[in-house]
Amino acid sequence: MALVKKPVTGMKEIMPREMEIRAYVQGIIRETYSSFGFTPIETPCLEDINNLCSKQGGENEKLIFKVLKRGEKLNLETAKSEADLTDMGLRYDLTVPLVRFYSNNANDLPVPFKALQMGNVWRADRPQRGRYRQFMQCDIDIFGESSNMAEIELILATTTTLGKIGFKNFEIRINDRRLLKAMSDYAGFDPDKFDNVCIILDKLDKIGLDGVKAELVSEGFEAASVDKYCALFDGTEGSLEGLSKIRATLGDSLDEAVSTNLSEIISSVESVKEADFKMVFDPTLVRGMGYYTGTIFEIAIPEFGGSCGGGGRYDKMVGNFTGTDVPACGFSIGFERIVLLLLESNFRIPGKGEKAAYLVDKDMPKELFAKILKEAMEERKAGKTVLVSKMNKNKKFQKEKLSAEGYTEFKEFYADSYKG
Amino acid sequence: MALVKKPVTGMKEIMPREMEIRAYVQGIIRETYSSFGFTPIETPCLEDINNLCSKQGGENEKLIFKVLKRGEKLNLETAKSEADLTDMGLRYDLTVPLVRFYSNNANDLPVPFKALQMGNVWRADRPQRGRYRQFMQCDIDIFGESSNMAEIELILATTTTLGKIGFKNFEIRINDRRLLKAMSDYAGFDPDKFDNVCIILDKLDKIGLDGVKAELVSEGFEAASVDKYCALFDGTEGSLEGLSKIRATLGDSLDEAVSTNLSEIISSVESVKEADFKMVFDPTLVRGMGYYTGTIFEIAIPEFGGSCGGGGRYDKMVGNFTGTDVPACGFSIGFERIVLLLLESNFRIPGKGEKAAYLVDKDMPKELFAKILKEAMEERKAGKTVLVSKMNKNKKFQKEKLSAEGYTEFKEFYADSYKG
Repeated sequence: MALVKKPVTGMKEIMPREMEIRAYVQGIIRETYSSFGFTPIETPCLEDINNLCSKQGGENEKLIFKVLKRGEKLNLETAKSEADLTDMGLRYDLTVPLVRFYSNNANDLPVPFKALQMGNVWRADRPQRGRYRQFMQCDIDIFGESSNMAEIELILATTTTLGKIGFKNFEIRINDRRLLKAMSDYAGFDPDKFDNVCIILDKLDKIGLDGVKAELVSEGFEAASVDKYCALFDGTEGSLEGLSKIRATLGDSLDEAVSTNLSEIISSVESVKEADFKMVFDPTLVRGMGYYTGTIFEIAIPEFGGSCGGGGRYDKMVGNFTGTDVPACGFSIGFERIVLLLLESNFRIPGKGEKAAYLVDKDMPKELFAKILKEAMEERKAGKTVLVSKMNKNKKFQKEKLSAEGYTEFKEFYADSYKG
Repeated sequence: MALVKKPVTGMKEIMPREMEIRAYVQGIIRETYSSFGFTPIETPCLEDINNLCSKQGGENEKLIFKVLKRGEKLNLETAKSEADLTDMGLRYDLTVPLVRFYSNNANDLPVPFKALQMGNVWRADRPQRGRYRQFMQCDIDIFGESSNMAEIELILATTTTLGKIGFKNFEIRINDRRLLKAMSDYAGFDPDKFDNVCIILDKLDKIGLDGVKAELVSEGFEAASVDKYCALFDGTEGSLEGLSKIRATLGDSLDEAVSTNLSEIISSVESVKEADFKMVFDPTLVRGMGYYTGTIFEIAIPEFGGSCGGGGRYDKMVGNFTGTDVPACGFSIGFERIVLLLLESNFRIPGKGEKAAYLVDKDMPKELFAKILKEAMEERKAGKTVLVSKMNKNKKFQKEKLSAEGYTEFKEFYADSYKG
């Protein structure tokens, strides 16, 4: 039973430099989202195991850290399966807990309800570079708003936040699950195989349109249908014109309201946006989660390879808890990716105060030490960071370490010369 | 497998009003401690089960939420005990993880190292009013400082923080484990029963000095010794004079350095303190945790019954990980109690900006809606909170709910009269 110095597999310790950036980004997120009327709420990190394993979470449900029952509830002798041993688990996202929260508290919340959550989630993924088993998610969600006022506000709030952090020249890519369905129907694909079609289309970034074609054919879809399907993506990405073109092609396969909705969102956001970004219609955007029922969207930042957050409408999820559907729409910002990018770009936090280190001789008499403390207290009151530390034998090394921590001013106090 | 609307037993959902206060208090804590040169760090919420069950945590080790092994590591058929089923657990405090962190990273950290941690901890306590199974702890700790510079800075930083939150007229009560030991030895108690003596003395608040006497006697300590012991507490609490008196009485039982150290801490802090509080020598102060090796201290706020945080020196804990002891001293502020008190006293956060709600007719044409959004974006840019929401049928009820959320300004936009 030796003690273990390393953190548990796949989870990271966060050092001072990264903590600073995290606090800064969290501050901007809280402040900006609040100015849009999103109110912070928090739910416990643990959820009832039945809620976590209710098929809302797709693949993530395989990655749950489950908590052992305690006391008399734990009966090793009669336990036949994992389910007998566990009663809760660590949440794998913030959406399931939020929907439970809303179902539990709807009577006390304003309608519509705009929620902001920042919190850790856990997934027992295979550890890999830059992906951890504990990470922070930042979500905004609107319940009780069926119109696209929800999508518009979510996108404006998220992009204003990204702009304040300093991101420019990025894109919000948008699509609709119902458009994806209409395209699949128009091509003549078996309606029961819609999910398979989506899974293959979702690989477009990695395998290209030819790869998608090949995979569809090899999965048994008819070549003529596949050609008809893939032709839909020809010259339709990016602009409102592309959207019009696809709408014209799809004809009766697509409910007019779906494309009107998308074009309203795109033009409303474009006309009032604060940050430097573009709204991009993307008929190939899929988003993994099966719970989406309408619009879906994603942040694409040029500095990243992939997506830096996303969201969409999920009007059916509250109904799983309460029996009555409530319109719901959310946007999750890729907090960990943003922090990583700022860290790697040597980002300097604007307006940071000065940091001074007072190095004090270990033999300093107590009365004189009190005067040094008094000076430090005054400087702190005036907004400065003052570290009071004993002076080490290797003073040069000590100062180097402190410089690396951002200290720029050093004061040395010697017992044989300091008079107070 | 029905879905469960309530949060898991003993854990709470945090509503917008409390979230506001939590964020405010966390902001003051982060800012004030930072101005003293404490640097924020974070460790994973999960720790290796061996670290959690290493007898550092006393009674808390019985309250661990343990995590089930996953995949091939979990073997139900061969599992004979809980230990075979679990490899990690949720941390029950921030001290064990911090000591592990320090042991793992000492080479990369400045000496001395001043850490600030704010994070959730979990204990499977019996649920009771105001005590939850998930709660936030806020700790500051100094590693590598053997002199009382550590205690002085910890107490100054914590009290300055309490002062900024608005607390006045409180006390920091201070004692030393070595003084407790000297008193027990002086009375003639069996040295092996020192822990029992402490456990009984710790009940003083509840059972009074007569109760302590009675319990010591009933536990088999000699009446003469018990009288000698309890006489030590007569007129020695509170002042530096009390400390001198106890030192004089104890004579050779007490290392002179221990009382000098206490009196230096008390007078240094008194001479430079920022907040409105008193340093109080308290020879009856025990603090539960067995890992303390020297000074111990506690915050007493008149508004509370009991303690509102505490800490002390634990010079032997790093050695459990690395084989080499490192001086360490920490102070934990009672975050949840502070938040509860502010909530119950209807605390208003100073300097909060205005909140306006724009209620928009659901039939508002999109071009006009864009103008409303534009106005909201301008106001938000200027620092105001602006909620854009559809106008509900029951407008009066909607406004009441929003007023309760702190909205003071309402603008109504009707499709048939708004011209942009």
